[in-house]
Amino acid sequence: MNPTPPNSPLVNFMKAMHPLGNKPLIYLHEHASRKSVGRGKYLLKPGEFCMHYYYIHKGLLRAFIKEEKKEITTWLNPENEITTSIRSMVRRQPSMEYIQALEDSELYALHFDDMEKMYSLFPEMNVLARKLLVEYYADSEERSYISRIPSAQKRYRHFIASRPELVNRIPLKYVASYLGITLETLSRLRGKKKSIKLGGA
Amino acid sequence: MNPTPPNSPLVNFMKAMHPLGNKPLIYLHEHASRKSVGRGKYLLKPGEFCMHYYYIHKGLLRAFIKEEKKEITTWLNPENEITTSIRSMVRRQPSMEYIQALEDSELYALHFDDMEKMYSLFPEMNVLARKLLVEYYADSEERSYISRIPSAQKRYRHFIASRPELVNRIPLKYVASYLGITLETLSRLRGKKKSIKLGGA
Repeated sequence: MNPTPPNSPLVNFMKAMHPLGNKPLIYLHEHASRKSVGRGKYLLKPGEFCMHYYYIHKGLLRAFIKEEKKEITTWLNPENEITTSIRSMVRRQPSMEYIQALEDSELYALHFDDMEKMYSLFPEMNVLARKLLVEYYADSEERSYISRIPSAQKRYRHFIASRPELVNRIPLKYVASYLGITLETLSRLRGKKKSIKLGGA
Repeated sequence: MNPTPPNSPLVNFMKAMHPLGNKPLIYLHEHASRKSVGRGKYLLKPGEFCMHYYYIHKGLLRAFIKEEKKEITTWLNPENEITTSIRSMVRRQPSMEYIQALEDSELYALHFDDMEKMYSLFPEMNVLARKLLVEYYADSEERSYISRIPSAQKRYRHFIASRPELVNRIPLKYVASYLGITLETLSRLRGKKKSIKLGGA
C-alpha cells in the first residue's frame, strides 16, 4: 500500500519544480522543520556557518554584507523561493553575510546533510536541484549585471521592470542599498518617475 | 565487451567533476565538437541565441555587455572552465552579451539539445550538472558581491586575491571594465601597490 502523499507548501513547491515520487516527498516532509522569524530578526550572521536551505512560505528575506559600516544588500527574496547563503554552504566557510527577515516570515528549513542524503537516496532530487540551480544561477548573473550598470537611473528602471512585485513592498533604504545608491538619489529618481507618469496621463 | 573509454580534455574534466560510466563519456565524446577562436574574435553577439556550452581547453574568454557605448565585462574565464551565456540559454532569449576570446582559444562545444538528451539518458549527468552549477552559482554570487564593494581599491584587492592567475594575463582595460573603474584609476591603484611593495622590501 502506498502511503498518503504528504501535503505542505514546501512539498508543493518541490513537486511543481520536478515530479517526485512519494518516498522523497515523505523524506522531505519529515526532515524539514518550520521556522518563524520576526521582522528585523536575523537568520544568519557573519562568522556563522550556514547549514540550512530555507523555503520561504510567507514573508521576505534579504542578505547583506557590511562594508566599512555601509550595508550592501546582495539579494531580496520574497515567498515561494528557496534561499541560503550559497557561498558559505558550498565552500563550508563561515558566512560573510547577514540574512535578515524584512517581514514576519514563515520558513521551512532543511539541513544541508539531509539534502545531501536525499541526493544519494533519490536520484530524481538531482534533477530537481539542477533545475533550481540553473534558474538561481541565471538570476545571480542578472543581479551581477544590474549592479554594474553605471547609471543609477537605469539600475532603478531595471529593478522596477524585473521585480515589480517588490517595488512598493520593500523599505526604500533597502532598495537603495541593493542598487548601490543613496536614499537621496533613489528618492529623486522616484520623484522624477512619478512626475513623468503624471505628465503623460 | 566494454568499449575503450574515450580520452579527451573535456572527458577528463567531466570525470574529475563526478565519476561517469563509459556510455555517457562516449556520448559526450561523440557529440562535442572542437572549435578554435582567434584572439579578439566573438563566439556570441547580442541578439543571437546561445545554444552551446563551451569547455575551454586552452585560452581565455570574457563576456561583456555594451551600455551606452561603455563595455561592462561580466566575467573572465580561463582554461579548464565550462562556460555559456546562462541567461540566454536557460530563458531561451536572445543574448544581451558578447562572448569574446581574449587569447587564441581552443574549445569543446556541446549543443544544448545534446546536454538535455544526456540528462534523460544518463541520470548521473544530473549529479554532475548539480555539482558544476552550485560552484558556478557561488562564483556568480562572488562576482555580484565584488562589483558592489564601494571602494575601487578594495575591489581591485579582492580581484588580485581571488583571481591571482589572471592579474598579469589580462589586458588592463578589461580588468578595469570588470571592476567598473577607469583605466586611469586602475593604473593608479597598481602604482600604489607596487610602491608599497618596494617600500616594504
